Amino acid sequence: MTQIESARNNDVTPEIEQVAQQEGVNTRELMQKVAQGTVVILKNVNHKGINPVGVGKGLSIKINANIGTSHQKSGLDEELKKLEIVQKTGADTVMDLSTGDDIDSTRRSILGKSSIPLGTVPVYQIGIDAINSRESFMEVDKDRILQVIENHCRDGVDFITVHCGVTKAVVDCLEQSPRLTGIVSRGGSMHAAWIKKHNRENPLYEYYDELLDIAKTYDATLSLGDGLRPGCGADAGDRAQVMETIVLGELVQRARKAGVQAMVEGPGHVPFNLIAGMVETIKKLTFDAPLYVLGPLVTDIAPGYDHITSAIGGTAAAVAGADFLCYVTPSEHLGLPDIEQVREGVITSKIAAHAADVAKGRQVSIERDRLMSIARVDLDWNKQAEYAIDKDVFEAIDDGKPCTMCGEYCSMKIFKETVNPSAILK
Amino acid sequence: MTQIESARNNDVTPEIEQVAQQEGVNTRELMQKVAQGTVVILKNVNHKGINPVGVGKGLSIKINANIGTSHQKSGLDEELKKLEIVQKTGADTVMDLSTGDDIDSTRRSILGKSSIPLGTVPVYQIGIDAINSRESFMEVDKDRILQVIENHCRDGVDFITVHCGVTKAVVDCLEQSPRLTGIVSRGGSMHAAWIKKHNRENPLYEYYDELLDIAKTYDATLSLGDGLRPGCGADAGDRAQVMETIVLGELVQRARKAGVQAMVEGPGHVPFNLIAGMVETIKKLTFDAPLYVLGPLVTDIAPGYDHITSAIGGTAAAVAGADFLCYVTPSEHLGLPDIEQVREGVITSKIAAHAADVAKGRQVSIERDRLMSIARVDLDWNKQAEYAIDKDVFEAIDDGKPCTMCGEYCSMKIFKETVNPSAILK
Repeated sequence: MTQIESARNNDVTPEIEQVAQQEGVNTRELMQKVAQGTVVILKNVNHKGINPVGVGKGLSIKINANIGTSHQKSGLDEELKKLEIVQKTGADTVMDLSTGDDIDSTRRSILGKSSIPLGTVPVYQIGIDAINSRESFMEVDKDRILQVIENHCRDGVDFITVHCGVTKAVVDCLEQSPRLTGIVSRGGSMHAAWIKKHNRENPLYEYYDELLDIAKTYDATLSLGDGLRPGCGADAGDRAQVMETIVLGELVQRARKAGVQAMVEGPGHVPFNLIAGMVETIKKLTFDAPLYVLGPLVTDIAPGYDHITSAIGGTAAAVAGADFLCYVTPSEHLGLPDIEQVREGVITSKIAAHAADVAKGRQVSIERDRLMSIARVDLDWNKQAEYAIDKDVFEAIDDGKPCTMCGEYCSMKIFKETVNPSAILK
Repeated sequence: MTQIESARNNDVTPEIEQVAQQEGVNTRELMQKVAQGTVVILKNVNHKGINPVGVGKGLSIKINANIGTSHQKSGLDEELKKLEIVQKTGADTVMDLSTGDDIDSTRRSILGKSSIPLGTVPVYQIGIDAINSRESFMEVDKDRILQVIENHCRDGVDFITVHCGVTKAVVDCLEQSPRLTGIVSRGGSMHAAWIKKHNRENPLYEYYDELLDIAKTYDATLSLGDGLRPGCGADAGDRAQVMETIVLGELVQRARKAGVQAMVEGPGHVPFNLIAGMVETIKKLTFDAPLYVLGPLVTDIAPGYDHITSAIGGTAAAVAGADFLCYVTPSEHLGLPDIEQVREGVITSKIAAHAADVAKGRQVSIERDRLMSIARVDLDWNKQAEYAIDKDVFEAIDDGKPCTMCGEYCSMKIFKETVNPSAILK
């Protein structure tokens, strides 16, 4: 039985128990949310030795890091190093987006070394396999697509991005309502091209029930991809995006009914003023499914710094109700990230997630900020390193001494020594 | 006559004309805002050869970069290099916070080489001078304070931070309502220590009229420092902070009445959920004076990344009504920034300012995002570099080719080649 089925049967699974404990929430309340589908538990029955991760209503904001081999840039060894960094730096999940040699064995290596849930986008492999066999993605059929998806699930992949919402009607809608950047989702553009070529429905939509059967067998969570997400601020919230979101809502309901866990992917590029309303709209249209966003990036003009534009948008989105942030690295829009950029992406996403947790009143997050602030007043650099999101930055500072920023004119020193130390709370 | 006096006389000064042109706003409407004091024009009558900068209602969000010598870290040559970078990277103003050798001649060198308005915090020099002459800041009197301020203004400093709002009553309020991090403003802690030591009123408050006379002579804008700004999220919006803000409102009104331009400084460390309300409260209590914020930093636990925590908060603050963002560099809370960190601080602040301009509907900012997005669809990397906030990041990419992120599976290529190029707006 899947987590959602067990929860509906009033069974508290070991995974629900474990997530409740990690999150400090009530076990039966969590079980009810899993039963309703407003929380998903990421854990494939075949992925042994990992901690299940809960995503959704009432839980802390989670972050995901993408890694993966490519012909142009990077092989398995480097990607395994990235996996290590990603886990050490504190990502909650990782996605393997490999497009290099032997995608199957790469995925199995990563699965074997991952202690956190792993996600994939099976359609990437389908595309690469087609190229390697001198075919085109246009020639693949639903059996091939479902076969690759089943391989991923059988191997133990905990969540898969599937672009089932890129339907014929959604692509028609896009063509009737032009936008600035067309389709910027790789999977979305591949499915749209297939639909146009064959003038047929997206197989993942037409045979969604078969996909649900596969996901159910392994309790792989469906991450319903937003193939029509806006690729620039000007396209945010347009007809095509909202139309697809309505379809995703239908797919969420069908997944829940079939006993399959599902979450929904969200944008993308969204100006700051539109973020809260957009998140609320998506949540409403998808029946409060856990929302997994890529960004949102609050401006289009900052390549090289899109980890920052997405931390701004990610914080706002998470405060408004998004549950899960996909990291964005400084190399977004430019190329694949190196190890240092991967690390920076994870840290930046964690900052956004933590800032949102604080804003939403999560006590353990607020307490960490409080303890950091006390350590700061005490000029206790060791303690500051303990509470910091990145302890390495404290290496150069002598404990007990003010930093070189203000030197002797350290306001902390002046206040305690000459104003009134008793005006400081402990 | 100062800008505010001229505007009240219905005179459109050359500076107002110039700012209106830079900003693309109506000259007479701008003049009315200057007359009301909701916009300030930064330009000391003695600072020749600079472009005046307007800050406030209806204008684009501005950003400031701090530089300055220190005994521990850096001399004049390095700080002049920082000035060059700061101007090249696009800061709107710069503040000289020098505490090293010969502060007077450092300031004059920076003033001479600066083509953008310069701000200072004269109390830093007063403190350093006291140390150098083996005195204590406790021994300085109002004449000494006003004399240093007059020196700064006579030299051509365009705006000065003055902590006039740290009154005896405000310090009493703080002592009655303890907080986690006391006073984290250097100038604020120095004034509070002086008040406690002498059991007397802050000279900058007691002799505010004399300060106004000096500022008026040179049309130096007062930047009313928030000495009681919160130093951690837990202290945000507490009694001491709001009490000081009420005093700052009184000082704004007195400045306007005296024909002196004034803006107000704001926090600091503020959880994301409190930012909009806090900005609105400050604006209300200070009669819509231009608001100059340091951050706000949305969490306390990210030393090494506080340019990012402050970009998150700065965007939210600017969308809510803040007008002017002081940059924060990656070295905040750790030490003085090096040149690369200065550059990163400026770029990050510019991202926050631009994202807020887009969110507030500023057409020229929205248009830049639109042009960037078109260049992105066209895989035109030269054009992307032209619209980017940092063009250097494009060096490694071949024009016309997809980036290494998706390689051949570039959604832009797939969409145009196989879906429908006419669904792309131009």
